[in-house]
Amino acid sequence: MAVGDGTLPTLWPVKGVRLGIASAGIKKAGRKDLVVFELAAGSQVAGVFTRNAFCAAPVQIAKQHLAASACRYLVINTGNANAGTGQQGLRNAEATCESLAQLAGVDVKAILPFSTGVIGEPLPVEKIKKALPEALACLSESAWEAAATGIMTTDTRPKAASRQLQLAGKTITVTGIAKGAGMIKPNMATMLGYIATDAAVAGDVIQPLLDDAVNRSFNRITIDGDTSTNDACMLVATGQAANAVIDKQSPEYQQLSDAITSVCIELAQGLVRDGEGASKFVTVQINQARTEQEALAVAYIIAESPLVKTALFASDPNWGRLLAAIGRAGLEELDVSLVQLHLNEVLIAENGCRAASYTEEQGAAVMAEDEITISVDLRRGEQSTTVWTSDLSHEYVRINAEYRT
Amino acid sequence: MAVGDGTLPTLWPVKGVRLGIASAGIKKAGRKDLVVFELAAGSQVAGVFTRNAFCAAPVQIAKQHLAASACRYLVINTGNANAGTGQQGLRNAEATCESLAQLAGVDVKAILPFSTGVIGEPLPVEKIKKALPEALACLSESAWEAAATGIMTTDTRPKAASRQLQLAGKTITVTGIAKGAGMIKPNMATMLGYIATDAAVAGDVIQPLLDDAVNRSFNRITIDGDTSTNDACMLVATGQAANAVIDKQSPEYQQLSDAITSVCIELAQGLVRDGEGASKFVTVQINQARTEQEALAVAYIIAESPLVKTALFASDPNWGRLLAAIGRAGLEELDVSLVQLHLNEVLIAENGCRAASYTEEQGAAVMAEDEITISVDLRRGEQSTTVWTSDLSHEYVRINAEYRT
Repeated sequence: MAVGDGTLPTLWPVKGVRLGIASAGIKKAGRKDLVVFELAAGSQVAGVFTRNAFCAAPVQIAKQHLAASACRYLVINTGNANAGTGQQGLRNAEATCESLAQLAGVDVKAILPFSTGVIGEPLPVEKIKKALPEALACLSESAWEAAATGIMTTDTRPKAASRQLQLAGKTITVTGIAKGAGMIKPNMATMLGYIATDAAVAGDVIQPLLDDAVNRSFNRITIDGDTSTNDACMLVATGQAANAVIDKQSPEYQQLSDAITSVCIELAQGLVRDGEGASKFVTVQINQARTEQEALAVAYIIAESPLVKTALFASDPNWGRLLAAIGRAGLEELDVSLVQLHLNEVLIAENGCRAASYTEEQGAAVMAEDEITISVDLRRGEQSTTVWTSDLSHEYVRINAEYRT
Repeated sequence: MAVGDGTLPTLWPVKGVRLGIASAGIKKAGRKDLVVFELAAGSQVAGVFTRNAFCAAPVQIAKQHLAASACRYLVINTGNANAGTGQQGLRNAEATCESLAQLAGVDVKAILPFSTGVIGEPLPVEKIKKALPEALACLSESAWEAAATGIMTTDTRPKAASRQLQLAGKTITVTGIAKGAGMIKPNMATMLGYIATDAAVAGDVIQPLLDDAVNRSFNRITIDGDTSTNDACMLVATGQAANAVIDKQSPEYQQLSDAITSVCIELAQGLVRDGEGASKFVTVQINQARTEQEALAVAYIIAESPLVKTALFASDPNWGRLLAAIGRAGLEELDVSLVQLHLNEVLIAENGCRAASYTEEQGAAVMAEDEITISVDLRRGEQSTTVWTSDLSHEYVRINAEYRT
């Protein structure tokens, strides 16, 4: 199951980024499960990584290498997360980098490794090493869709997004791919995202550009509230568009930031639409909160409530479960009689109970849609926020109960 | 589905408590859906109520009446929660009390109302009023099992527990019933509990006796992390055993407290065993934490992780999901290499990875059991805690998707 048809848009190549895809046979023979990004010399690279204390071996190595050296290659395998693998896991992640460094003729610290898949199994590093030459042999600027497919795990379809814009007389491209279908939640989860632009940017803006985009996209989605050991989202700026370097003071900064954020939001929403077992795409919009923090608390308690999510799956306008979820968000001095609740345009509840104008027919009509917006007006402040999520279906249970079999 | 056979133990009557059960036809014609407790004059009564801001009308009225007056009757209906019903809901809860007060010849404030069932529908108060005489006509000391059945919603079986003990030469009885099968979580959820003893206790110990028992029982269970608008747990002490009044200084205080807590733990575990769609009864034991608070944080993040719960349903020893859950509990300076993880007696993980001694056969054998203990040794302090939960099954989704249909 997934929401919408998932057709990929046009993916513009990014000058200075080439992608190679190969079959390492990590979990399934013949599956294209290994992706290599080659980045032009001089590329700026920033990363955001999982906050899970059990952070996987490749995440630890990627952080170290990124801090130590200019980055020239990203190497990503699916089928095995190399997480919960202790010291041997670190050695295997390093061995992957060493092998690629030797083949490519660069320093080992110029390589960032990423893994996704089952936790706790030893990484079959020999299989990966054997497949690396195949990946390098087919490096191409136009392999974004193949790369998006190559990094999938329980995803049912690839996610990719692309923008072109004119900045100071140059055509700038921003293209990105992402994977992740469960265990997705703020602050990164089993999610990998790679966004690249050919814009030239100053060294001190690459990380803020990524942080801003992630906070408005990947950190605003949740499937099941779980977060993973392996999440990473990378932003690359190759500078090959030959524009005047963009810094914080440049008039073009906001336009570039908006384009990157827009790509990230499209990717993040794509993850939710393809959430494990998802049959609904749900926007949770909280308005008139005292602080953004309390808006987020209410948004997530709704978005992660199993009772709300099963009602969404059943297309049941069970607004009582929504009120109950709001009520346990821990807001101080919440006057429940002020709270207004809408499903799309339909006023469902006010004055602490069902709205006088509401009919079950209205509710049923709204809930029959694939895409639903739950709006809560707390009427106690001026802050608002938006979170995207999916429903909780039989298929979610089936996927996660059978994952290792 | 439910774990274990659910056979009820012997339920000793409590002198001074009579129970009457009737059919009001609230949701289904003929269903015994109305329960009345009659308490002897002079009974001490304490209550613990939901902390949900959308607290249901009967909860609001019960709190007011309990604070205002000595309590003589409890009246409980199933099939309708009278929650999310605004001002009319309050009037309906009061009307129920007024009707019973008139029939019983007591003040309206001597009545505490309780409701459970669907949220947001108007309480059919006329049906309840009509059935009250039937409930009063059959008041009996020995109707505990019928009462336990009368308060059920999605429960598949009644929950009740009973103890007798000798205190200062007198036989003291503690008997209780509870309901709840989902939306159960610390600080009360769609849970109703009624515990009574014939012990004579001082007025200032009835609330501490209940608070202590609830904190060690009902506040240590979770099914799906949701909490409800209607929870209440009541403790009654009728004093009819004619023992010397027990106060905080009495040598018998601890024995009575332990008996009440023991009844509450048996009831709480009964709720988990009958959790919506439960096929496993899971004890989550966190040891060697710095504080009880961090032990609870880890316990609940495991007990509420959909990925852990679906793995439990699948009998899959997917310990990587357990490590990932521990890792996102937000513990500062957690040294993951110290953490040890056991399933029952089997050491599963240590040093941040799978234990060298572990085999998949061992894990599979443990997970095949109906009752599983997950033990986590954090090895950074001396505090520990225990939480009980169930798995996440297809049946959970079915029950909650179809609840209103």
